[in-house]
Amino acid sequence: MSKVAILMGSKSDLEAVKPAAVVLKKLGIEAEMRIMSAHRTPFVVAEFASKAANAGYEAIIAAAGKSAHLAGVVAAHTLLPVIGIPMKTSDLGGMDSLLSVVQMPSGIPVATVAINGAENAGILVARILALKYPAVRDALAKHRAEIERQAVEADTELVKEGI
Amino acid sequence: MSKVAILMGSKSDLEAVKPAAVVLKKLGIEAEMRIMSAHRTPFVVAEFASKAANAGYEAIIAAAGKSAHLAGVVAAHTLLPVIGIPMKTSDLGGMDSLLSVVQMPSGIPVATVAINGAENAGILVARILALKYPAVRDALAKHRAEIERQAVEADTELVKEGI
Amino acid sequence: MSKVAILMGSKSDLEAVKPAAVVLKKLGIEAEMRIMSAHRTPFVVAEFASKAANAGYEAIIAAAGKSAHLAGVVAAHTLLPVIGIPMKTSDLGGMDSLLSVVQMPSGIPVATVAINGAENAGILVARILALKYPAVRDALAKHRAEIERQAVEADTELVKEGI
Amino acid sequence: MSKVAILMGSKSDLEAVKPAAVVLKKLGIEAEMRIMSAHRTPFVVAEFASKAANAGYEAIIAAAGKSAHLAGVVAAHTLLPVIGIPMKTSDLGGMDSLLSVVQMPSGIPVATVAINGAENAGILVARILALKYPAVRDALAKHRAEIERQAVEADTELVKEGI
Amino acid sequence: MSKVAILMGSKSDLEAVKPAAVVLKKLGIEAEMRIMSAHRTPFVVAEFASKAANAGYEAIIAAAGKSAHLAGVVAAHTLLPVIGIPMKTSDLGGMDSLLSVVQMPSGIPVATVAINGAENAGILVARILALKYPAVRDALAKHRAEIERQAVEADTELVKEGI
Amino acid sequence: MSKVAILMGSKSDLEAVKPAAVVLKKLGIEAEMRIMSAHRTPFVVAEFASKAANAGYEAIIAAAGKSAHLAGVVAAHTLLPVIGIPMKTSDLGGMDSLLSVVQMPSGIPVATVAINGAENAGILVARILALKYPAVRDALAKHRAEIERQAVEADTELVKEGI
Amino acid sequence: MSKVAILMGSKSDLEAVKPAAVVLKKLGIEAEMRIMSAHRTPFVVAEFASKAANAGYEAIIAAAGKSAHLAGVVAAHTLLPVIGIPMKTSDLGGMDSLLSVVQMPSGIPVATVAINGAENAGILVARILALKYPAVRDALAKHRAEIERQAVEADTELVKEGI
Amino acid sequence: MSKVAILMGSKSDLEAVKPAAVVLKKLGIEAEMRIMSAHRTPFVVAEFASKAANAGYEAIIAAAGKSAHLAGVVAAHTLLPVIGIPMKTSDLGGMDSLLSVVQMPSGIPVATVAINGAENAGILVARILALKYPAVRDALAKHRAEIERQAVEADTELVKEGI
Repeated sequence: MSKVAILMGSKSDLEAVKPAAVVLKKLGIEAEMRIMSAHRTPFVVAEFASKAANAGYEAIIAAAGKSAHLAGVVAAHTLLPVIGIPMKTSDLGGMDSLLSVVQMPSGIPVATVAINGAENAGILVARILALKYPAVRDALAKHRAEIERQAVEADTELVKEGI
Repeated sequence: MSKVAILMGSKSDLEAVKPAAVVLKKLGIEAEMRIMSAHRTPFVVAEFASKAANAGYEAIIAAAGKSAHLAGVVAAHTLLPVIGIPMKTSDLGGMDSLLSVVQMPSGIPVATVAINGAENAGILVARILALKYPAVRDALAKHRAEIERQAVEADTELVKEGI
Repeated sequence: MSKVAILMGSKSDLEAVKPAAVVLKKLGIEAEMRIMSAHRTPFVVAEFASKAANAGYEAIIAAAGKSAHLAGVVAAHTLLPVIGIPMKTSDLGGMDSLLSVVQMPSGIPVATVAINGAENAGILVARILALKYPAVRDALAKHRAEIERQAVEADTELVKEGI
Repeated sequence: MSKVAILMGSKSDLEAVKPAAVVLKKLGIEAEMRIMSAHRTPFVVAEFASKAANAGYEAIIAAAGKSAHLAGVVAAHTLLPVIGIPMKTSDLGGMDSLLSVVQMPSGIPVATVAINGAENAGILVARILALKYPAVRDALAKHRAEIERQAVEADTELVKEGI
Repeated sequence: MSKVAILMGSKSDLEAVKPAAVVLKKLGIEAEMRIMSAHRTPFVVAEFASKAANAGYEAIIAAAGKSAHLAGVVAAHTLLPVIGIPMKTSDLGGMDSLLSVVQMPSGIPVATVAINGAENAGILVARILALKYPAVRDALAKHRAEIERQAVEADTELVKEGI
Repeated sequence: MSKVAILMGSKSDLEAVKPAAVVLKKLGIEAEMRIMSAHRTPFVVAEFASKAANAGYEAIIAAAGKSAHLAGVVAAHTLLPVIGIPMKTSDLGGMDSLLSVVQMPSGIPVATVAINGAENAGILVARILALKYPAVRDALAKHRAEIERQAVEADTELVKEGI
Repeated sequence: MSKVAILMGSKSDLEAVKPAAVVLKKLGIEAEMRIMSAHRTPFVVAEFASKAANAGYEAIIAAAGKSAHLAGVVAAHTLLPVIGIPMKTSDLGGMDSLLSVVQMPSGIPVATVAINGAENAGILVARILALKYPAVRDALAKHRAEIERQAVEADTELVKEGI
Repeated sequence: MSKVAILMGSKSDLEAVKPAAVVLKKLGIEAEMRIMSAHRTPFVVAEFASKAANAGYEAIIAAAGKSAHLAGVVAAHTLLPVIGIPMKTSDLGGMDSLLSVVQMPSGIPVATVAINGAENAGILVARILALKYPAVRDALAKHRAEIERQAVEADTELVKEGI
């Protein structure tokens, strides 16, 4: 069965990145969180990304903030799909991270989700793996139905309460 | 074998979207371009997206500009991976399209590439399908090597010419 | 008499959206708040919007944040006037919501108010309905006079206090 | 029958504003274009806006660029629905106009459309008047169907041509 | 002797606007604070601005936020120098106010200071009045020297403390 | 009679800055254009600004682009009113210039006009000098009436032509 | 041995600037912090910068916010390398400071680091001085290894803890 | 004597990057231009940067656009000073490149110059090398004087011509 790596540039990103791991677990996908930095441990990143496919990973989520190079550098060293999470920043709100992650030049794409969009990064990986693993497809469908049900219930409750 | 849909919101997007189709063809992936709009033909979009998985599509690329809702709406109607291309706009440069595509709320992800990043959208789809189709994996590896070779050649040429 | 729907993408928008309902009530217009999401419950949105005119609604207010597609999708399924409220976001301040709501392509307009501008959304609806319902026209005039009076009083008080 | 005013801050806005008049005419709504400026002819604006309702206007479209105060000032002098068109600017692309038009404080709303969104301003007025005038409702429905048909035809043509 | 008006769009701006009054007082210039809104009390603004020169005012400071039209509208009704203070906003940080105030079209200038720059608005008025009133010139020179001295003292203290 | 200096950071700014000189001449105010740079000729700037008041200047207009420090540096060396013109830039449209000019810290104000707002810089200077020189006041009133007349004529012509 | 000046525009910048001094000390480089302002004490800045090379300084770090002219003005008065730190601002997050510091016109460069990037400013100075001083080179290498080790340890710990 | 590397991410950057080489040559510093990409040839970049110090390079200029990771990745593999040039982009004007280059996380600084600021990148390198090489110091001083002289001449000429 499939394995997913969740990389983050710094330990301080952990809380914001965790929802990716949580939703992947919920969808039955094995995930591993790692701290590695395109700037502080570039050789670790290069080696990990280069060997990721052979090590059995099928997708890599990479979260980083500011000059967020992690996802792009990982994507440069693997052919696996790489999902980038731009982290919110305290000064520019994450606009710096977003542009650093999403504006990749032709040839090396990064599948970018919203600023601090860790949960969606996990769900996107599930959509990708669902093409190959029927169990993930089923888990996703159930999850999708649950999301829908919650929205419907919230609506029902609001209508009941009135304004 | 796999099939990919490339949707665009308007015929005027065609030239900027074509590189997705070109690179997919080069990588041996069948692609179909369609014009449909989340705003002008919402029922067509809903129906297409809802039936896309059963119709044999394995990924959907959606390109739109300004209030670029196409990718998000498609993602709301399917569990397939949806890749969003924010189109450059004449007034805000595509910042409007980018934020409309990438900032999806939790639950429904869109894999966003750069503004006008059609070629990367195609390559991202190939990275996704490569998990399942070894032929795509091989084509991608060849393509990746070619990109690398071109960069190396450009460097060699520049070094030869001197400044 | 006229009926207005106030849609929001998520329950978390409720507090910020309420001023629309409050001002509509004050102006004598019946309003109903609903939670529905262009992404999580797209069929609910499509069905509601498609039938809204026949169900007696005369205007629809739609509030959403981030990739705020709700107002645009609603506008695609109805010919009623649709008022969009871009919700403030914690990272980009609502610039993402604003551009997602206001930059609609030709053919399907959304009447956009300020970020978190729920009260103005309600007043705008009243201005629209006042064309048809003299009572609303009168309520609006009274409300307008009250706003003016409050500003004049605040000025008078400040002048009295001195600096 | 209803009458609509289309105001613009400067003669140089004429070409970009015309689509509002064109679409209104197409939808059977009488429109009048006027040049008046919140800054250069403020008394003209105040007088026009104050008397617009009595003069038989039912909606006012106001287009201006840069520090685009026209729509807001008009809205301050009338209770009619006011639609603001932020004009594209040569330096900031219209971001200045957009924020000047849309970010109205509580009490005085402006229904804002996209940057240079004159056609949508016209259609929005039609949606508003359609509540009162069945003929406008019918014209709008026909127009909406035409927009849809054009999108479907463009799609059909593209599918025929192939890539 | 000269008199200056300090206008603000809303009572909630008072705390942020006060430094203008404080510095003007310190520089020996009589100032009067008033609340009036380009949108809620447009006739008050128009009348005040039109008569300001005859009433003995020699400069007008106008502070407003969001679609900050106050300074521009005042400038449209007087030939006095008008100083605009863009107020910080909770969502866009005041970028909306800044662009609304500073991007005035040709013909009607507003002398814009920084976001929440009330103190500088007062000093700017003093620089203007100093051309005519030697006492203001002297007060300004003293104030300027004081500013310089404070900076020098802060430096001296820091050097003494070491790192 | 009064004298005004118009400084620009580079010869390439000349065409965009000229309207300041043109309008000043029209309003009967003597103006002198100079090229000096806060970065390339800082001593020239410091000396000029320090001596400007004694040399008979009554206001200084300073135009610069990108990291536009000229107006701020001039304002630091004089007590005269300093008007800053942020120049449009080819990459960021002048947002860089605008923020560099307008966001002055407390103590040293720059009266900022719009991006490339040279004409308004000249008119603003005239409004300032009009406090002291009745002839300037009269010229300004005539100019203001002319602006208004042109706007009215443009309107009349448009109404005549119809749509 | 080498000496570095760390200038800041205001005492309020002290806490955010200190990390530059701390890291320089750690790397064995003598640093001196000074408060001087391009706007409030321009002559102090000009004199300090003009004499800095002769006084034995080999690099100057300059931190300022808003219209952050300090680094540019310093660079105009010396040939030493000048490192600019744009300070975070409460309204625009530091975008104003960043553009004011980094967008220097041709001829006078400022080596700009991230918003509030004081620590990196110190490390950058060390990289510069390391070209000349082997001891700095060694200290830097050790520091670089430590940064790497910390990142590796954080990763090891996370892997151990699991998700 | 010293040697400088000028790296660019793509051949299309050549024209905009050349001024760095031109000014370095003028200042008597040997420079070598190379094309290498953090994304397309990451191993080339890692190897080049890792060995640059031993190969005799004393500074590295790195120019890239969009998600501009080149300078950051180079800085991660060397202790030499790295100067980053953010390239202008056709959609966002280079704001994406700027934020990707300048917002480096603590530990690994990039000395960032203006968007398309290649000439300043060269001059900054000269300022750095001037600390060690008196000849560069002299060349810089001469160059600085020349810049100043040109500005003075432009001013003289303008004053002669009059307005």
